[in-house]
Amino acid sequence: MAEKISRNTFIMNDPPTIYSYAASGGDKEGQGPLAECFDEICTDSYFGQPTWEKAERELMRRTVMHALRKGGLSPDDIDYMFSGDLLNQCISSTFGLRELEIPFFGIYGACSTMSEGLVLSSLLTDSKIGGKVIAVTSSHFCTAERQFRFPLSYGGIRTPTAQWTCTASGAAVISESERPPYIKGVSVGKIIDLGITDANNMGAAMAPAADYIISTYLNDTGLSADNFDYIVTGDLGTVGSELLKKLLLIRKINIEKNHADCGMMIFDPIKQDVHAGGSGCGCSASVLCGYFLDKIKSGEIKNILFCATGALMSTTATQQGESIPSISHAVHISYDNTPLKTDHKEQL
Amino acid sequence: MAEKISRNTFIMNDPPTIYSYAASGGDKEGQGPLAECFDEICTDSYFGQPTWEKAERELMRRTVMHALRKGGLSPDDIDYMFSGDLLNQCISSTFGLRELEIPFFGIYGACSTMSEGLVLSSLLTDSKIGGKVIAVTSSHFCTAERQFRFPLSYGGIRTPTAQWTCTASGAAVISESERPPYIKGVSVGKIIDLGITDANNMGAAMAPAADYIISTYLNDTGLSADNFDYIVTGDLGTVGSELLKKLLLIRKINIEKNHADCGMMIFDPIKQDVHAGGSGCGCSASVLCGYFLDKIKSGEIKNILFCATGALMSTTATQQGESIPSISHAVHISYDNTPLKTDHKEQL
Repeated sequence: MAEKISRNTFIMNDPPTIYSYAASGGDKEGQGPLAECFDEICTDSYFGQPTWEKAERELMRRTVMHALRKGGLSPDDIDYMFSGDLLNQCISSTFGLRELEIPFFGIYGACSTMSEGLVLSSLLTDSKIGGKVIAVTSSHFCTAERQFRFPLSYGGIRTPTAQWTCTASGAAVISESERPPYIKGVSVGKIIDLGITDANNMGAAMAPAADYIISTYLNDTGLSADNFDYIVTGDLGTVGSELLKKLLLIRKINIEKNHADCGMMIFDPIKQDVHAGGSGCGCSASVLCGYFLDKIKSGEIKNILFCATGALMSTTATQQGESIPSISHAVHISYDNTPLKTDHKEQL
Repeated sequence: MAEKISRNTFIMNDPPTIYSYAASGGDKEGQGPLAECFDEICTDSYFGQPTWEKAERELMRRTVMHALRKGGLSPDDIDYMFSGDLLNQCISSTFGLRELEIPFFGIYGACSTMSEGLVLSSLLTDSKIGGKVIAVTSSHFCTAERQFRFPLSYGGIRTPTAQWTCTASGAAVISESERPPYIKGVSVGKIIDLGITDANNMGAAMAPAADYIISTYLNDTGLSADNFDYIVTGDLGTVGSELLKKLLLIRKINIEKNHADCGMMIFDPIKQDVHAGGSGCGCSASVLCGYFLDKIKSGEIKNILFCATGALMSTTATQQGESIPSISHAVHISYDNTPLKTDHKEQL
């Protein structure tokens, strides 16, 4: 059973397994440095559908089917699923997954959604409430631009701090403890708002949420940043990542050597014109499921702290002059299944 | 620990308590038949704020504070919260609750959100993952009209099947088993879509989801509709409620005598011009927390099956000609804490 060791942090007594997983991407993601990591790259931004919104749900549906196929599973094998996305009323999830007929929990954490899904899945699975659970999310450049920014045909100029919403999806099936990768611990985030109001600088708005959850998980467990091969943030991009490192240094936590940001990994900063990096729910979900999990499964990477970050605003909130509240949840994914100690002094 | 007895249904071995709860409403709700049930009625549709969106988040924040106050609790006593609402990117929840600094899980189930929050809270609490958890949601007539329908000043004519989004909020704190009301069992819904496309007839779109989850919970537990004082649906309204009764009769389940729909209870059908009834996340949440829970706590009502229903569409989906997928989750709330039997033949 998952054990609560602080206000935010739970450690798993019998660390759940990430049983199977898949990542899909669009054309631009297929031209990036992680192209080989995706289970499917679709060069048609419409994914064979009549609208981009229908394309995004097809992307998500296909990604779930890849994750099931790779695990030798059918939808009937899944106890329930957690899913959410950036589109108003999470229609990529609800329309994309309705045909699977799997008991469904809609979640919303903006770009932190994959972390939130993994936290809830692992808490429930480690407590034997359901044997196999799916966490999935997606984003699509064209649907996000249309909804949050400008019509694509308008050709608006992007600011240097702006990020590029990935057309990508990641899905993971969590099961009872069996083999690596394991989820050893999680920290549930709280909403942080330091007053950033620039909707074209999401990285800066989200960095304090990452700072909070990374320092919380390390403090609560007694682990240090050096115990992890990578401290992985979702999509802070170049601006937010620099800010995060500075914020953590104030707390005497140095992640200079082992920080990795999914938004900076998915595109080539020189060859692909994405300004501050990639973003979107699907960015961190696909980099986790396409890149990191295979390496943890094989033992090439032993431990990561995965912290997808979400900016919890809407266009209405921004138009009303509001700042951008953010959240991040931490998921400790490991090659080994030795439970963490509850007394963190014993950890080291 | 919560025990899974079918694909959808869990029974609680040590039924969690709904420890404290509160309901708030707006002016129209304060003129309705349940006026006395609310902890606060605010006759100012702006709740002292400059915009309706800021009003809705103030409504939600106040409702949480009422629930905490009535339980003698402070935000620090709460392990985590589940919250979501109808506004794009759930901004009522994220902006309304950020100052509480409680670990936060965003959920989205449209008007089924209160059921979803109660299901997740009770599953986690019965498994000792957290001692006190809040489930909360809200809706506001003016924000919903502006976002989903027409500007209010446009004065559009509403169809006879249309429902009136309630300005209301309900919040419940779930704790380990202590005293009534208890949550004895839950069924997790799946997304149902029978092809209804009329966004002005949500009741018809959601009735099949209610039919599915009510029949599932009864079949899985071996209980009959007569074992409940009330089978409570969220906001099917007059049209959806009639449809639900017909759908259940096909399955030989008769709820004619004990069906109650929150959307039909909150407004007076003769004196208040709301056409098919009330709707919105806050409708079922406030009627549950304002009306039913007190009566279960006192023993006046022994058992209800609470099934908030959600229509999982968006304006974009409707504009693209899509049908309306729906979902409902069932929550069995009881005056007594005798665990249900896992073998349903023993139940009767």
